[in-house]
Amino acid sequence: MTVKAYGAYAGDKPLEPMAIERREPGPRDVRIAIAYCGVCHSDLHTVRDEWQGTLYPCVPGHEIVGTVTAVGGDVTRFAVGETVGVGCLVGSCGHCGSCAEGLENYCENGWTGTYNGAIAEAPGHTLGGYSQAIVVDEHFVLKIRHPHEQLAAVAPLLCAGITTYSPLRHWGAGPGKKVGVVGIGGLGHMAIKIAHAMGAHVVAFTSTAAKRQDAHDLGADEVVISRDADEMAAHAGSFDLIIDSVAASHDLDAYTAMLHRDGTLVLLGVPDHPHPTPNFGNLVFGRKTIAGSLIGGLPETQEMLDFCAEHGIVSDIEMIAIQQIDEAYDRMLRSDVRYRFVIDNATLEAGPAA
Amino acid sequence: MTVKAYGAYAGDKPLEPMAIERREPGPRDVRIAIAYCGVCHSDLHTVRDEWQGTLYPCVPGHEIVGTVTAVGGDVTRFAVGETVGVGCLVGSCGHCGSCAEGLENYCENGWTGTYNGAIAEAPGHTLGGYSQAIVVDEHFVLKIRHPHEQLAAVAPLLCAGITTYSPLRHWGAGPGKKVGVVGIGGLGHMAIKIAHAMGAHVVAFTSTAAKRQDAHDLGADEVVISRDADEMAAHAGSFDLIIDSVAASHDLDAYTAMLHRDGTLVLLGVPDHPHPTPNFGNLVFGRKTIAGSLIGGLPETQEMLDFCAEHGIVSDIEMIAIQQIDEAYDRMLRSDVRYRFVIDNATLEAGPAA
Repeated sequence: MTVKAYGAYAGDKPLEPMAIERREPGPRDVRIAIAYCGVCHSDLHTVRDEWQGTLYPCVPGHEIVGTVTAVGGDVTRFAVGETVGVGCLVGSCGHCGSCAEGLENYCENGWTGTYNGAIAEAPGHTLGGYSQAIVVDEHFVLKIRHPHEQLAAVAPLLCAGITTYSPLRHWGAGPGKKVGVVGIGGLGHMAIKIAHAMGAHVVAFTSTAAKRQDAHDLGADEVVISRDADEMAAHAGSFDLIIDSVAASHDLDAYTAMLHRDGTLVLLGVPDHPHPTPNFGNLVFGRKTIAGSLIGGLPETQEMLDFCAEHGIVSDIEMIAIQQIDEAYDRMLRSDVRYRFVIDNATLEAGPAA
Repeated sequence: MTVKAYGAYAGDKPLEPMAIERREPGPRDVRIAIAYCGVCHSDLHTVRDEWQGTLYPCVPGHEIVGTVTAVGGDVTRFAVGETVGVGCLVGSCGHCGSCAEGLENYCENGWTGTYNGAIAEAPGHTLGGYSQAIVVDEHFVLKIRHPHEQLAAVAPLLCAGITTYSPLRHWGAGPGKKVGVVGIGGLGHMAIKIAHAMGAHVVAFTSTAAKRQDAHDLGADEVVISRDADEMAAHAGSFDLIIDSVAASHDLDAYTAMLHRDGTLVLLGVPDHPHPTPNFGNLVFGRKTIAGSLIGGLPETQEMLDFCAEHGIVSDIEMIAIQQIDEAYDRMLRSDVRYRFVIDNATLEAGPAA
């Protein structure tokens, strides 16, 4: 079946309308009419081949929500008409230790991304959510229990939500814990909301004084302007956990110094240019750790969606038509979005920008 | 009371005999006649002012064993004649969160080192175990339950033993766990013995092929020559825990790549020159951590000594007279010691080298 999509034919080409093929649902497949798709920084990096290895044509998008329109004969968990989501993964080996534990995001044989993931069928790689429909193995489909009118704002939970929920949960954010969030963007604003809902004392770090009130509104108990040495010093040695959502190269020592004994600094991104080498003395003299975390597994993603539905948490979004995608990318690069663009996939019907 | 000691009057002066004062035991103090004192790399760095901040005269030594010769009126845990030990700490604030948890080594108000630690009494800083006797608050004195003939070889447990036992214990070394030990020296050889006794599968990493048989004899199940790329590659992604005892600047990526998901690389030392900045992608793509660990608390040090007594673990040592200390330092710098020098403190009586 042919559906309308937006993608690029090369790293130096703009996104444009294209027609792509979706497979007929196999026995375990779910076919989804995509209502909305969030716009992640990874989309931009991949479509422009900034991480190398992009396979073209490239159709990005891995914050997908929509409605089930068909199911294979062996599908047990979903029925036509249900509201569902798809995140960053559409496949994994299914038999390694990590998959067995529901941590498909750490599949030891390599998981398959929702876009740019190698597959046997044409064109040899997966095509993502900037499209009218997608066909996905039910194991990688999530139930969405938010009210329907929140659906567009749910889309970013599938990547930004789980990427922050997973480390908050793994490292025990909750009542009595002091949790820092570095960077108030697509990821950071979700981390603040979720950590607050988990009951932690949340401190937001931002280099942008203008975001102070925003951070409070998102649920931060305190806001620290990271360029202000006095504000920073006041928190030395006090954090149990700091979630660092800033992918750009930056000084980590300021944050390891802010950890309490046994505290953890979790990096969610890999910088294009390396971070300056950390002062490992900060770790040794307090049994502290620097850790990394990548998205989350499928069971945990469902847990996150249910947690957010229960606590009324969605992303703060700005809706765009697919024809505005280049402008959205440019604004995203300037951090000029509060806090996530979401594509109204109904606009794919209209074809190219006028 | 005046006792004989060996120390230095300046960073560019050799160690020489000196007479130092020990306080009369206060109500909570234990006076110890020192039988043996291990020689730690820190001794050399401090006495030569290589870390800056050394206070002179400097008498090093924090791997102390000996016999109680007097106790203050409020001392409850020790009696004259008992065999005891003193490690890296002789004081801490006693009331912070870390002290309350028995983690005096992470005292939030700064612990007092056994040497070079600031104190009120003359000469204004502590003087260590290269001396005939020491007076220590009983809180910082440990019971030694090893057979008496092992006493000299017990001394290094007070620093090298606890420094490796603490992270092995904290990060769960034991049956079913694969534990790596990087560097087979004073610390590393203890880590191998202790991890083996804890029941872990132990893999020793060394750059020195000549140490292969030694590592097996110490208890390593496997030995990997770290310069051999094929040997290294065979262990990719397989370790739960790697204890890195190498203080010199080195590549950490080889070891983070060897960790399994959720694995931890623990650094025991702070390099004089920074390690190259790590590839944080190795952490993100496996929820791995780089951590630091410093010595251990007093309750855990007692636990370690008892564990070692029960399992027949001591350090492999080479005994020296105090007059050989400069030669011992030189050999230590060349890693020409298997695996710890221990001073026979009876030789202090003889005075300077001939």
